Amino acid sequence: MKSFRKELTFEIPTRRAFINITDEVLEAISESGVQEGLVLVNPMHISSSVFINDDERGLHHDFEVFLEKLVPHAPIDQYRHNDTGEDNADAHIKRQVMGREVVCAITKGKLDFGTWEQIFYGEFDGKRKKRVLIKIIGS
Amino acid sequence: MKSFRKELTFEIPTRRAFINITDEVLEAISESGVQEGLVLVNPMHISSSVFINDDERGLHHDFEVFLEKLVPHAPIDQYRHNDTGEDNADAHIKRQVMGREVVCAITKGKLDFGTWEQIFYGEFDGKRKKRVLIKIIGS
Amino acid sequence: MKSFRKELTFEIPTRRAFINITDEVLEAISESGVQEGLVLVNPMHISSSVFINDDERGLHHDFEVFLEKLVPHAPIDQYRHNDTGEDNADAHIKRQVMGREVVCAITKGKLDFGTWEQIFYGEFDGKRKKRVLIKIIGS
Repeated sequence: MKSFRKELTFEIPTRRAFINITDEVLEAISESGVQEGLVLVNPMHISSSVFINDDERGLHHDFEVFLEKLVPHAPIDQYRHNDTGEDNADAHIKRQVMGREVVCAITKGKLDFGTWEQIFYGEFDGKRKKRVLIKIIGS
Repeated sequence: MKSFRKELTFEIPTRRAFINITDEVLEAISESGVQEGLVLVNPMHISSSVFINDDERGLHHDFEVFLEKLVPHAPIDQYRHNDTGEDNADAHIKRQVMGREVVCAITKGKLDFGTWEQIFYGEFDGKRKKRVLIKIIGS
Repeated sequence: MKSFRKELTFEIPTRRAFINITDEVLEAISESGVQEGLVLVNPMHISSSVFINDDERGLHHDFEVFLEKLVPHAPIDQYRHNDTGEDNADAHIKRQVMGREVVCAITKGKLDFGTWEQIFYGEFDGKRKKRVLIKIIGS
C-alpha cells in the first residue's frame, strides 16, 4: 500500500472566501503515484471547510447569503464561545453546516469525478494562516 | 490492496426523492471480494447527496419539509446562481446541508452497520440522468 | 494492508451531549499498529453524530442553541416520524446537519491533526445504549 501526504497553505485576506483547490488535489494525486485509492482532503482547522460543489460565482454568493442568514457573525455577543475573547463562533458553526472534509475516489491515477465536481476550501475565519491536509492511500 | 469501482444510474421522475441504495452497495461489496476495507459512496453530481439515516416514510417527509423551509426552491430569482438560466440553486445548497458522501467500514465482507443504518441517494434536482459512484478499497 | 476494528459504547444520561472521544481514537490507532492510513469514526446509530470541532464549553452551548432553534425537539407532533410512536425525529435531522462520520489521516502512527482539532460523539437521543465504530486501514 502506498501513502502520500501534502499540506496546502492559505492566508485569505478576507474573513470568508471559497477557493477552488481541485488543481492542487490533482497535482498531489499525480505526485503520489497512486493509481487506485482514496484521497482525503480536510482543513487542519475548525473554522473552515473542504467541500465539493460548483465553481460558479452566483452560487458562492448564495452560499454566503444562506450561511450568514442561518448563522450571523454579528452581534458577536450572541455566542457564548465569543466570551473567551474570540469573535469566530459563527465560523465554527458554518463549517459544521458545510462539512469538514471530502473523501474522493482515485481511479486510473485520476480524480474519479463527475463533470461539474470541484473541490473548495471554505474559509469562515480568515486573515490568518491556515493549512489543508491532503492524504492519499492506495496502490 | 484490492480496489473496485461501480456506478449506479438514476433518472428520478420528480424534482426531489430519497432512494434506498443499501442493497446495491451490499452487492458491490460482494462483487469486490473485499473482506476488510472501506467503501465510499458519492453522487457524481453537485445537486444530490448520499447519506445514511432511517428508512421511514414519515422521517423522509420531515427531511423534505425541513429542507424546503430552510432553502426554498421558489421564488427562483432569490438565488444568483439561477441568473445563469438554472433553477436549481436550492438543490446545490440542500445537498450541502445533507452532505455529499458516506464512507462505511467493510468487516468480514459485509457492511459494518448498526441495526437501523440505511444508505440513501437524495435527489434535489431530478428529471435527468444521474450517477452514483461506489469505490471500494481493502484486502 | 492492515485493518483494525473497535467499538466504543455510551449510555448518555441526558437527551443531548457532546463527548470528546479523541483519546479513545488515539488509543485505537496505537492498538492497530497502523503507521500510514485512514481512520473512520462513525456512530452505529442514526440519531447521533461524530464530528470534529473545538473542545470549548461555550461553543458546545452555541451548537446546542443553534440546533434546537433550527430543529426544535418540541412540539413532537410537528414531525411525521413521531407518528410511529418515537419522539426523536429532531435527533435524526440534527445528526444530518452535524454530519455522520469523520475520516482522519494517520501519519507516522498518529492522528494527523491541527492544533485545535478534537473528535466528538454528538448524542441527540440519549438515555439508551449507543455504539461508535472505529475502523482503521493502512500499513
